[in-house]
Amino acid sequence: MPGVRGFFHPKTATGVSSLVPPPPWHYSGDLITVEYRTDPARVAELLPEPLGLADEDPGAVALIWADWQSCSSSKQELLDPVLSQYKEAFAVVRCSYQGKTYSRCVYIWVDKDFAIARGLHQGYPKKLGSIHMTRPHPYGPAPRIEGGAMFGASLAAADRRLAETVVTLREPAPANGFVNGNPMAHHRWLPSIEKGKGLALDELVETGAAAFEAGQAWAADAELTLFEAPTEELARLEVHEVIGAYYRQVGVTWDGGTLLESGTSQAE
Amino acid sequence: MPGVRGFFHPKTATGVSSLVPPPPWHYSGDLITVEYRTDPARVAELLPEPLGLADEDPGAVALIWADWQSCSSSKQELLDPVLSQYKEAFAVVRCSYQGKTYSRCVYIWVDKDFAIARGLHQGYPKKLGSIHMTRPHPYGPAPRIEGGAMFGASLAAADRRLAETVVTLREPAPANGFVNGNPMAHHRWLPSIEKGKGLALDELVETGAAAFEAGQAWAADAELTLFEAPTEELARLEVHEVIGAYYRQVGVTWDGGTLLESGTSQAE
Amino acid sequence: MPGVRGFFHPKTATGVSSLVPPPPWHYSGDLITVEYRTDPARVAELLPEPLGLADEDPGAVALIWADWQSCSSSKQELLDPVLSQYKEAFAVVRCSYQGKTYSRCVYIWVDKDFAIARGLHQGYPKKLGSIHMTRPHPYGPAPRIEGGAMFGASLAAADRRLAETVVTLREPAPANGFVNGNPMAHHRWLPSIEKGKGLALDELVETGAAAFEAGQAWAADAELTLFEAPTEELARLEVHEVIGAYYRQVGVTWDGGTLLESGTSQAE
Amino acid sequence: MPGVRGFFHPKTATGVSSLVPPPPWHYSGDLITVEYRTDPARVAELLPEPLGLADEDPGAVALIWADWQSCSSSKQELLDPVLSQYKEAFAVVRCSYQGKTYSRCVYIWVDKDFAIARGLHQGYPKKLGSIHMTRPHPYGPAPRIEGGAMFGASLAAADRRLAETVVTLREPAPANGFVNGNPMAHHRWLPSIEKGKGLALDELVETGAAAFEAGQAWAADAELTLFEAPTEELARLEVHEVIGAYYRQVGVTWDGGTLLESGTSQAE
Repeated sequence: MPGVRGFFHPKTATGVSSLVPPPPWHYSGDLITVEYRTDPARVAELLPEPLGLADEDPGAVALIWADWQSCSSSKQELLDPVLSQYKEAFAVVRCSYQGKTYSRCVYIWVDKDFAIARGLHQGYPKKLGSIHMTRPHPYGPAPRIEGGAMFGASLAAADRRLAETVVTLREPAPANGFVNGNPMAHHRWLPSIEKGKGLALDELVETGAAAFEAGQAWAADAELTLFEAPTEELARLEVHEVIGAYYRQVGVTWDGGTLLESGTSQAE
Repeated sequence: MPGVRGFFHPKTATGVSSLVPPPPWHYSGDLITVEYRTDPARVAELLPEPLGLADEDPGAVALIWADWQSCSSSKQELLDPVLSQYKEAFAVVRCSYQGKTYSRCVYIWVDKDFAIARGLHQGYPKKLGSIHMTRPHPYGPAPRIEGGAMFGASLAAADRRLAETVVTLREPAPANGFVNGNPMAHHRWLPSIEKGKGLALDELVETGAAAFEAGQAWAADAELTLFEAPTEELARLEVHEVIGAYYRQVGVTWDGGTLLESGTSQAE
Repeated sequence: MPGVRGFFHPKTATGVSSLVPPPPWHYSGDLITVEYRTDPARVAELLPEPLGLADEDPGAVALIWADWQSCSSSKQELLDPVLSQYKEAFAVVRCSYQGKTYSRCVYIWVDKDFAIARGLHQGYPKKLGSIHMTRPHPYGPAPRIEGGAMFGASLAAADRRLAETVVTLREPAPANGFVNGNPMAHHRWLPSIEKGKGLALDELVETGAAAFEAGQAWAADAELTLFEAPTEELARLEVHEVIGAYYRQVGVTWDGGTLLESGTSQAE
Repeated sequence: MPGVRGFFHPKTATGVSSLVPPPPWHYSGDLITVEYRTDPARVAELLPEPLGLADEDPGAVALIWADWQSCSSSKQELLDPVLSQYKEAFAVVRCSYQGKTYSRCVYIWVDKDFAIARGLHQGYPKKLGSIHMTRPHPYGPAPRIEGGAMFGASLAAADRRLAETVVTLREPAPANGFVNGNPMAHHRWLPSIEKGKGLALDELVETGAAAFEAGQAWAADAELTLFEAPTEELARLEVHEVIGAYYRQVGVTWDGGTLLESGTSQAE
């Protein structure tokens, strides 16, 4: 009897049911980034050992909205776009590990199941949310990508709004921020099926883009509001000072990561 | 005591609750159009008197997918895009009225309530649906708008897929089809609140764009499939022959229509 | 050429595409009602002439959550429940017309298109929303319908929470409130397709249940919170004092209404 | 520096962001079960070694729809029901492991993220879907739980209908089927973050209810239809013969499972 096939569940004889295909995964998307400073203690409390605060600007946070089309190397998902399109909003901080600075996604919401599955693989702590972003357009009232153009974005989960922003493009910029610019240091955790036995999976992994292309980044002014919710803590990362905001269109490929260490986190 | 205000319900003291603002309404969007011929009798059966079949190519149908951002003249909806963005798929035929050729939307599905409200005003027979379209993008795996680019689109309602297409761009074209190119002849119907008393509202109206700008239209090859569903009749407009397919980005303004006649339709 | 058929749009040769079947419409559902007093001026501003404030307790408001299964007389929608089930939350006040007291729904949110269509016919000013209600259940942790049982309910629209309540059943009660207990006085309004020409449909109608059966009503204690939102005014009906709360299971039939007057409202 | 807390991601200083609370998890729900026989080879191809076909009736499949309210021991999720309610549809087969018969869920779709998270822990291969089930009700047109009562159910994913059934209750029955009546033998799989390195998590676990109460089961006649879809293989479990159908209301507690073995599956 042969085994079952598929990169992800459900595994079957053919593998075609798998919620996601094997990497590489390819993405086209638009990013709205708002970077700000919060109390570094609020960042530190999200970093389990052996991670520590970044040396410089340790309270920096990036809140990023992304509107994606993603696919396998066959690109076939793009032609049935319910299987390809999703939106997400996520909060990124930086941390230090063995003397090196990493980025780390601490909260993330997406609107499709295949995006949740990829996050489980990559260590993104995904929940479902409702995410909206103004899209640029060459005709009619929607903004072009140019100085003075305004874009809005919102995030909700469990029928509560969690965040909203309006950014106004100002001028071209060399990059769309710095907080999400390092390799990612993520945990992949799953509890033991047996109660009281800790974690069955406890990995610290490094992950990042295998390929990247992008258009001109634009610097922007931003208004950003975070909202309290009973089961969310995004608003604990209080906005003390906006550092900057950015708009950028990108193409990305993801193709696996590296295991940094296993079984050592101080997580429950 | 003053009256209540608002272009649409719910009307209040301020008018800010209205599901839609007063026209003009402005739109930026992308259109995938597939035009085909069906049995003209299937078109005729959807045309109540005094409408008749168009003289030329009376069995022509356009099935159109659109990905919109819409707003009032203030443009404020664009900055809270959950209030601005929607997608739709709709079937358009042509008809004849008093010697003139009109376009007429016979089926349409949208994914937001404000789009339903505008349809009630304009005579579009809207239901809710789930609509997806591949979007062009300058980076990564998603298509550019160029020869050979492939775009997919799908429509579902009540948890059943109703239509899907894949179009492959071939060459620039002078327009994105002809079936949806005439002024619209639509009915606005509402039954009497009292049983057996016919229609309380029964208007034949003419409507169309007040302003229009657009990018280069592209002709495309298309595969189109329609699916049966217990409460839908789109598939009765059987695809006998694909005439052509098109991709185009547009900006549109709508600002009211004209009453053609009232109280004369042969509708129940 | 025969006319087209169907109680509602889209009208076709067969009538099967109609978004709703002709009445009578039958409903099974659970209701959570919270009645409270607000400033009567906030009620008055929602009542266009010839409606006026009710003589007694003019600031009384009922905020009602309902979890419905609805169908035509054939009951066939019940067997494909995506076509039958919906939830709604709505605010009801009372008003006076020609010396008689009426109930009037001033705001309402539903989660299906067929419910929007019925609301257009009945004069309910429906928008789409996301509505949730605890359901009673005979086993496991969910509440039975009995003293001390707790039920929660929430309403969101456009990705913002608008209202939430928790009610705790106290004792059997003779009815589930009084604010929604009168015939409804509703307007059916649609603007003219031509700008500046006022209303094309402007009717004051009376409507109510044609048949009604119900289980034991339960009185409850309630906590009720309303939230501000940019395009909603429910929170203007501020909660000054909770009158009472109720839980009840009902069966209802709706079968048409009566036209009270036409073309007289002081609405834009 | 303390570690981060939370049963599931995202782990934080407080643990309140966790997508699910720690077990025990409590459920109230209604189940529609349709059991049928398919080709045993289609079951066998879904069973990786060391699992084998069950000795008796190896081609038996249960397709189950469930309408749940779930919560932690605090029951607080029940009072904000967007955090408590979900629906699911799932296919269960039986298998043999070390001479013992187990049940095994081979496909499952749910409509909330917290249900996906619990499935990851329990080894249910969950995707998102749209699930509907007729609910019993004591008043109006919806069915009571009694002989002759009819209930419908449907499942869709990625905007395609995958399954639908109508069951007609016939008589009380001792149980709601046998296919889902054994302890579950599930795999918990996650690929290594490094390409080509196989599985990082590969566990065969046993899981089942820690507590169970239920109402009278009802036997039913059923019509069941499965539909093809490009990324789903439920329809490969072809319906050769309906064994029986059932309706039952249940209360369940889940409180952890047992690790059977690790690192041995013949899965990619």
